[in-house]
Amino acid sequence: MVRFKNKFRFVATAVDTVIFSVRESKFSVLLMKMKKSPYEGFWAAPGGLVKPRESVNDAAERILKERVGTADVYFEQLYTFGKVGRDPRGRVVSTAYFALMPGDNRIFRIAKEHGDTKWFPVNKLPKLAYDHAEIIDTAVKRLRAKLGYTNIVCGLMPKTFTLSELQRVYEAILEKKLDKRNFRKKIFSKNLVKKAGGVIRSEANRPAQLYIFSGKKVTLI
Amino acid sequence: MVRFKNKFRFVATAVDTVIFSVRESKFSVLLMKMKKSPYEGFWAAPGGLVKPRESVNDAAERILKERVGTADVYFEQLYTFGKVGRDPRGRVVSTAYFALMPGDNRIFRIAKEHGDTKWFPVNKLPKLAYDHAEIIDTAVKRLRAKLGYTNIVCGLMPKTFTLSELQRVYEAILEKKLDKRNFRKKIFSKNLVKKAGGVIRSEANRPAQLYIFSGKKVTLI
Repeated sequence: MVRFKNKFRFVATAVDTVIFSVRESKFSVLLMKMKKSPYEGFWAAPGGLVKPRESVNDAAERILKERVGTADVYFEQLYTFGKVGRDPRGRVVSTAYFALMPGDNRIFRIAKEHGDTKWFPVNKLPKLAYDHAEIIDTAVKRLRAKLGYTNIVCGLMPKTFTLSELQRVYEAILEKKLDKRNFRKKIFSKNLVKKAGGVIRSEANRPAQLYIFSGKKVTLI
Repeated sequence: MVRFKNKFRFVATAVDTVIFSVRESKFSVLLMKMKKSPYEGFWAAPGGLVKPRESVNDAAERILKERVGTADVYFEQLYTFGKVGRDPRGRVVSTAYFALMPGDNRIFRIAKEHGDTKWFPVNKLPKLAYDHAEIIDTAVKRLRAKLGYTNIVCGLMPKTFTLSELQRVYEAILEKKLDKRNFRKKIFSKNLVKKAGGVIRSEANRPAQLYIFSGKKVTLI
């Protein structure tokens, strides 16, 4: 059996996780403060090196568990960032993932924002380490695009929700106001949601229907 | 400056390219015959190891140029396959890409199918090396999904085309007949194509309008 020579092993393999949530009506990303040179004081998406006996996907799951206390959230592989000089410490290829967390009261370890981890609004990011500005930008674009043709938004919502709540999450991510009537028309025309069979009282004390996602996919042909 | 220790460098990084085309009305993928153990006689998507001074994306472009004579085709990163035992020669993480080639008479080096490279219909694949059955399956699913919400099909079409030709390419990839009237209605409702301003004679000798892609994106919200 032919085995690889060491000369092919010049790369370290890492994962980075872009963790999104809508917190206090703001489309936000979870960042860690870097403690070491060359990026001391910069912020970064949580990440780490892949271990010899774990798959790349397992490494992402481990990072999520370490950072938010669970991997039981929606996450998917985003893109592999493989430019030669992206890490000043040596050649590192990073496979990035993005994860979605509901903005409700589910208890995540991270919810307490202890120490060096913090939610930042996506439109007000601090100084970012490595190529993490590009990684986060790629994740933001992917999520915004997927809002248009999938029900991916469900990763950011509680199990049941009102249409107003759903619209506010869309508006937070797209960073624009949507027309209520058009929004509902499009959501209904695609059968994205269905009635959950209950109501809640809205701010104005009028009962609002609760919805759940239908699980239906959106396709053109 | 901290530098990585060699213990983090246990992975070789590779790229694999899933090259699709519709050839003789069949949704097809370009495969290479393997010459060496442990996969002698198996077939694989063209790939290779990333070089120390090239980015991962540049490696994919190089493989395309080597294999089809040009990288001036639509291609995008598909997914990074990072299971521990996916290559029996040692730990290799592979970033897969998929590329689309028009089925017309453009001259690609590969068109001649010299030697060890061959187009296979996607539904009649030979014995595949490594995890390439999974890689190709992932690419097929991605392409089929993207047909539904993007104009990605243009990577497989000549610059101008008739609506019948477009429908045949959709049918080849989706492996099912589509209703002509519904197909056209959906294509027009999304403004995917516009008239190119010419006609050609179809088989039945009736003039058929030529179309080009409008460049418009398809979105829900």
